[in-house]
Amino acid sequence: MLQSQLFTKTLREAPKDELAKNAQFLIRGGFIDKLMAGVYSFLPLGLRVIKKIENIIREEMNAIGGEEILMPAIHPLENYQITKRDAIDVLFHTNIVTGQKAVLGQSHEEVVVPLLQKFIDSYKDLPRAVYQIQIKFRNELRPKSGIFRGREFIMKDLYSFHADEKDFEQYYEEAGEAYKKIFSRLDIGQKTYYTYASGGTFSKYSHEFQTLTEVGEDTIYICEKCSIAVNNEIIADIGNACPKCGDSKIALKGEKTIEVANIFPLTTRFSDPFGLVYKNADGEQKPVIMGCYGMGITRLMGVIAELHNDESGIIWPSAVAPFAVHIIEITSKNENIKSSCKVMYEKLTGLGVEVLYDDRDDKTAGEKFADSDLIGIPWRIVVSDKTMKEKKIEVKKRGEKDISLMEFDSFLKLVC
Amino acid sequence: MLQSQLFTKTLREAPKDELAKNAQFLIRGGFIDKLMAGVYSFLPLGLRVIKKIENIIREEMNAIGGEEILMPAIHPLENYQITKRDAIDVLFHTNIVTGQKAVLGQSHEEVVVPLLQKFIDSYKDLPRAVYQIQIKFRNELRPKSGIFRGREFIMKDLYSFHADEKDFEQYYEEAGEAYKKIFSRLDIGQKTYYTYASGGTFSKYSHEFQTLTEVGEDTIYICEKCSIAVNNEIIADIGNACPKCGDSKIALKGEKTIEVANIFPLTTRFSDPFGLVYKNADGEQKPVIMGCYGMGITRLMGVIAELHNDESGIIWPSAVAPFAVHIIEITSKNENIKSSCKVMYEKLTGLGVEVLYDDRDDKTAGEKFADSDLIGIPWRIVVSDKTMKEKKIEVKKRGEKDISLMEFDSFLKLVC
Repeated sequence: MLQSQLFTKTLREAPKDELAKNAQFLIRGGFIDKLMAGVYSFLPLGLRVIKKIENIIREEMNAIGGEEILMPAIHPLENYQITKRDAIDVLFHTNIVTGQKAVLGQSHEEVVVPLLQKFIDSYKDLPRAVYQIQIKFRNELRPKSGIFRGREFIMKDLYSFHADEKDFEQYYEEAGEAYKKIFSRLDIGQKTYYTYASGGTFSKYSHEFQTLTEVGEDTIYICEKCSIAVNNEIIADIGNACPKCGDSKIALKGEKTIEVANIFPLTTRFSDPFGLVYKNADGEQKPVIMGCYGMGITRLMGVIAELHNDESGIIWPSAVAPFAVHIIEITSKNENIKSSCKVMYEKLTGLGVEVLYDDRDDKTAGEKFADSDLIGIPWRIVVSDKTMKEKKIEVKKRGEKDISLMEFDSFLKLVC
Repeated sequence: MLQSQLFTKTLREAPKDELAKNAQFLIRGGFIDKLMAGVYSFLPLGLRVIKKIENIIREEMNAIGGEEILMPAIHPLENYQITKRDAIDVLFHTNIVTGQKAVLGQSHEEVVVPLLQKFIDSYKDLPRAVYQIQIKFRNELRPKSGIFRGREFIMKDLYSFHADEKDFEQYYEEAGEAYKKIFSRLDIGQKTYYTYASGGTFSKYSHEFQTLTEVGEDTIYICEKCSIAVNNEIIADIGNACPKCGDSKIALKGEKTIEVANIFPLTTRFSDPFGLVYKNADGEQKPVIMGCYGMGITRLMGVIAELHNDESGIIWPSAVAPFAVHIIEITSKNENIKSSCKVMYEKLTGLGVEVLYDDRDDKTAGEKFADSDLIGIPWRIVVSDKTMKEKKIEVKKRGEKDISLMEFDSFLKLVC
């Protein structure tokens, strides 16, 4: 896209109330905009990143048999009375004009269980896995760190339905592996730990994926041998013995992290109150065993930005970058510069490469370079009087220092 | 996808409270599910249709320079006090835990104006057009006709920002033409009329796109000469003279319709209260002229289903069908049937054709045909003992009576 047509502009200064680096860069770069505490708009550059994250997650959820659906945001309060979750403090409440009481979805067990109940009769209808990518609402007392903890955010939530524990456990493993693939594709895999956490009152453990970052709110203890971790909330209970290898080798020092996802054995916690049962091969009624698998998409955008940056801005991993190539036209009286840039822009976009082309006439080279660093697109191409003389372009990878002069055709081979 | 893996099942009977044909078929076919009055889930087949409609709209909005963003659903009530819309009766209200009052977005003028205000300084920053595809909330007293009038629904809303009336009017025309393209691509163009409607207190007219259907709630009067219409609400004011050609030739008999979209000159209705101004070339402050352009996406799915069906079910236009081809395997002891179907399924999907393959072993041919008619995929292929003997497949277009026997390779040429 032409940068002259982008309605957002970069900001020199970050808002004073945003302390986390990711929030500062995302706001300054024009990726997000704060409407009120914990509630953000996603602007053209930010929405492109969100969609890339979503598509990676979608591919991996489809690969483990997930069927995508979209459930409503408004839920009848009575469903929460059935599960005794109507007093959860993060629920937003509202009233239907007819007098019915409703809440905004912070999770969807109260909707997905009655939904699947309409379609599950016998063991032949199991297993099932459904997921959605949807807006969630949590009435947080203290929203924090930009899009790390919002009152409104985008989440992927998958729910699985099984005939027995064994089938559930196998799927739970599979979902965990799918999550690892996602974090690896998002380039946060090396800093993200599979973490044992509290299973609530009905399971021994649940599992979180925790990413190392100083601005995180959680603390984990890592077992270097297994590359797993234990959440602070259960470290006292397990007596410092790794729940995987059994050795007492868990690090004594905690690390600050942020939870990017969790997977949770629900057993029959939600099947029971709704009476979600199936008939087994012998015609007996059995309760359906469930799991749930959440992943914060807007939070992931923040985490990626928090982990991939330098003092000048974000360094997006290619898989989620808003564009692949940033063409910088250095304003000049030489008309050939503009026409060369246009040719390159059209050639690249024609080949399916996503390009942001800085065609603005009222910006200096310095301003354009600063914007380019802040926005953080992986490849930067510069076309100037100097490069035109040599019939070459200047190529630089964001986050690296080397600048190469090369012919455009050589660059094409690099990115296509 | 394999139909045996689809978690939804078709229903023989429609729920008694759903009177409109589209709602009956959409629920019976497993496209949507009602959670509460006016609030629906979109199931795998339905979400596929929704995404196709969204992508067609997205392409046409991008073509007229629209930049896609995503604004929040929760809005601060104070923004509505500024525009004096805080008492609108369809607003859902909620409270932030900190005491701040909030509403759920039923439209986004109160968010988009302060947002664009951050980026519009001078005439050089105009015109701008931003849009989103987002969930909207309206606390309707009487939700109606399935997804025709919901309390929660998906909408595309675009907002345009201009330096003067002339620039606005030009864009307004362009947006109207883009809308016509969309309705033509969705195959409801011939029954959809560009309709003059009330412009509120600040414009002479706004314009709606009204689609003829007996289950509609609006009434329009058509000028056959111009192929435009006038909404009932202003017919008395204009004295039966067509607002386009001026002749008194408007039909005297009203037609029942449903509004699928509207475009609205906002003039400075929202710029003024927020003080959205720009500096012109002479350095003078001028108010920004705005337009808004809405389109109901979930409603469009209902309208398409309402217009394209027969007594057996929906007949989806190709552009929005959940799949292009429905392979029906007639259960048999002949193992070659299953393996042939699999080969065709993989060949088609490999070529990028979207296929639903009815591989279910526990359904009769009659049940499979009935399901196929109800779901309404454009092409139906049948593979049975009879077709196998002739080394052919049976091909039928949904909505047509002819059934042809042909080789699979000939069918490939038809669909690829």
